[in-house]
Amino acid sequence: MKIFNFSAGPAMLPEEVMEKAAAEFTNYADSGCGLMELSHRGTEFSDIMQRVEANIRGLMNIGDDYAVCFIQGGASLQFAMVPMNLMLPGGFAEYADTGSWASKAAKEAKLFGDVKIVASSKETNYDRIPVIRHWRPDPKASYLHITSNNTIAGTQYHSFPETEVPLVADMSSDIMSKVIDINSFGLIYAGAQKNLGPSGVALVIIRRDLAERVPEKTPVMLKHKTYIENNSLYNTPPTFGIYMLNLVMEWLKDKGGISAMEEINDAKSEALYELIDSSEFYRSPVDPGSRSRMNVVFRLPSEDLEAKFLSGAKKAGLTGLKGHRSVGGIRASIYNAMPIKGVETLIDFMNEFESANR
Amino acid sequence: MKIFNFSAGPAMLPEEVMEKAAAEFTNYADSGCGLMELSHRGTEFSDIMQRVEANIRGLMNIGDDYAVCFIQGGASLQFAMVPMNLMLPGGFAEYADTGSWASKAAKEAKLFGDVKIVASSKETNYDRIPVIRHWRPDPKASYLHITSNNTIAGTQYHSFPETEVPLVADMSSDIMSKVIDINSFGLIYAGAQKNLGPSGVALVIIRRDLAERVPEKTPVMLKHKTYIENNSLYNTPPTFGIYMLNLVMEWLKDKGGISAMEEINDAKSEALYELIDSSEFYRSPVDPGSRSRMNVVFRLPSEDLEAKFLSGAKKAGLTGLKGHRSVGGIRASIYNAMPIKGVETLIDFMNEFESANR
Repeated sequence: MKIFNFSAGPAMLPEEVMEKAAAEFTNYADSGCGLMELSHRGTEFSDIMQRVEANIRGLMNIGDDYAVCFIQGGASLQFAMVPMNLMLPGGFAEYADTGSWASKAAKEAKLFGDVKIVASSKETNYDRIPVIRHWRPDPKASYLHITSNNTIAGTQYHSFPETEVPLVADMSSDIMSKVIDINSFGLIYAGAQKNLGPSGVALVIIRRDLAERVPEKTPVMLKHKTYIENNSLYNTPPTFGIYMLNLVMEWLKDKGGISAMEEINDAKSEALYELIDSSEFYRSPVDPGSRSRMNVVFRLPSEDLEAKFLSGAKKAGLTGLKGHRSVGGIRASIYNAMPIKGVETLIDFMNEFESANR
Repeated sequence: MKIFNFSAGPAMLPEEVMEKAAAEFTNYADSGCGLMELSHRGTEFSDIMQRVEANIRGLMNIGDDYAVCFIQGGASLQFAMVPMNLMLPGGFAEYADTGSWASKAAKEAKLFGDVKIVASSKETNYDRIPVIRHWRPDPKASYLHITSNNTIAGTQYHSFPETEVPLVADMSSDIMSKVIDINSFGLIYAGAQKNLGPSGVALVIIRRDLAERVPEKTPVMLKHKTYIENNSLYNTPPTFGIYMLNLVMEWLKDKGGISAMEEINDAKSEALYELIDSSEFYRSPVDPGSRSRMNVVFRLPSEDLEAKFLSGAKKAGLTGLKGHRSVGGIRASIYNAMPIKGVETLIDFMNEFESANR
């Protein structure tokens, strides 16, 4: 049976990518070895490093004033590296609190300076992105941090705050899902395991001048500058993860790039929200203006029905639909790699389940 | 042509492991998805995490007073995490300087306290492990740090210092290549990409009580304690790397465990050193008592001959033999996964090359 995996991350990868990687797993580029067995300083991996950076720069239209880095430790390590690198001496940073991950990011920043919450939706259970025109960002902050898509609550920024200070975004769950203007940001980071590749590598895009802020007495592996100066090869990088990420980039180019992907993502999420809004059975707990196009969160009339829905879905080949353990309900994560066919199959199942159970 | 890859790391993995991983790459355990596409909190990966820890504990005979953790960032991040976690307030640590990696580890420690060099072979170009009976470790040190095998110089500890303070060892390049007594150590760390699996995951084995030393104001991702308390699942771990590492552990068990592997490793390295020592053509720059059984470093009569040797070896299917760029010469890395057949093929090539070129 064909499986559609709606897991929030690690998440499904494009079928073509998985097949290509499987085919050359034990013999990469006729080297007689698997890519993961080859030196990170050999010609094969050096070539991948050049291509992956060029592909990312091309796809996201990134200029030379920004560096593209690959760092281990996921977004969670960036929660600490961002303040370690960008907090000005004796300074403070502003954070928008839009969910569990945003609040974890702010918590790490407090170890390195003061943190002000510029906006929060905590009181309404993180059901929305606070209305941006009401924010009053402080021009003296070291930086302003946002979480562009909130996987647990199912919310997403559909525009970004304008500010004089560097805007830092955790884009782990919506990077490359829609066109953005890189020049609006000081630093963008994203764990790969949702839209980019397997877990174990984070993509960090940083305006080069900001990397100079880092205090000298910072461990070398925790300075963004180290990765910039060594093309992410100061130490052995996660070579196989970067190779997979590059295959995903090449797939994305083949599909027409990010703007083409954005159209597909809009169509996928709109189809799901339309069904939810037109039904008396399914219900979205998320403010309509803040709904995520990546993680479609919804509820059924009861938790019993939700459990029945999940087990029926699994039998129908639709897996990974359980909401995050902290909020319950159903969550369909529909990142770039989820084909329209997967969403159509889910919609058919939802209609049938509603007919049988309402 | 069959390739034998003598790369220092990332390095060759057992053929059986590579074939198994390739076969189930797109469909792990009949899930319909690749392992790297599955949630780190799902049953499939939870099962791998349980097995890998049990396998490591069994292979290395690790008791409950030690925790087994998987951390991103390689040994290089441990260079900083060790002092962040183990340096006592206002304290100092002792480091043995036996090479480039040992000295990088000491450099990071200086950010968190004083560092004393307990022993060094820097003056003789790191050609040996300083004679341990001459060391005078300070019982007031927070810990004593050694690098058990030095990949660049080709040296290895064949016994360990006895000390009252926790002994910390970077075992990146010889972990599980020979039997050790875990109870002699406070903390052992190892990047996986030599003896354990692919790059992107480090194994850290730590005596549980030592993990309590960490100052509260340490970033959560940089506390060993976080990994202990969350079974290395505080954030998304490098799932595919850990899966590969577990396949290597199962292969190692099938081969008879570490003591069986140690015998093979002794035979492989002895055969190479015997050839080198009996030849007037090849020469070992390493003190005989300190020679590594993992990285056999040797020189030829001239750099021109070394270049010719490398290109001839490559044509014969023997790759990755170039010495580290900082020292030159030839280096044959013969970790667990290198079969005896690979070493025999190298020896045949060396004999033929000597006959043709002396």
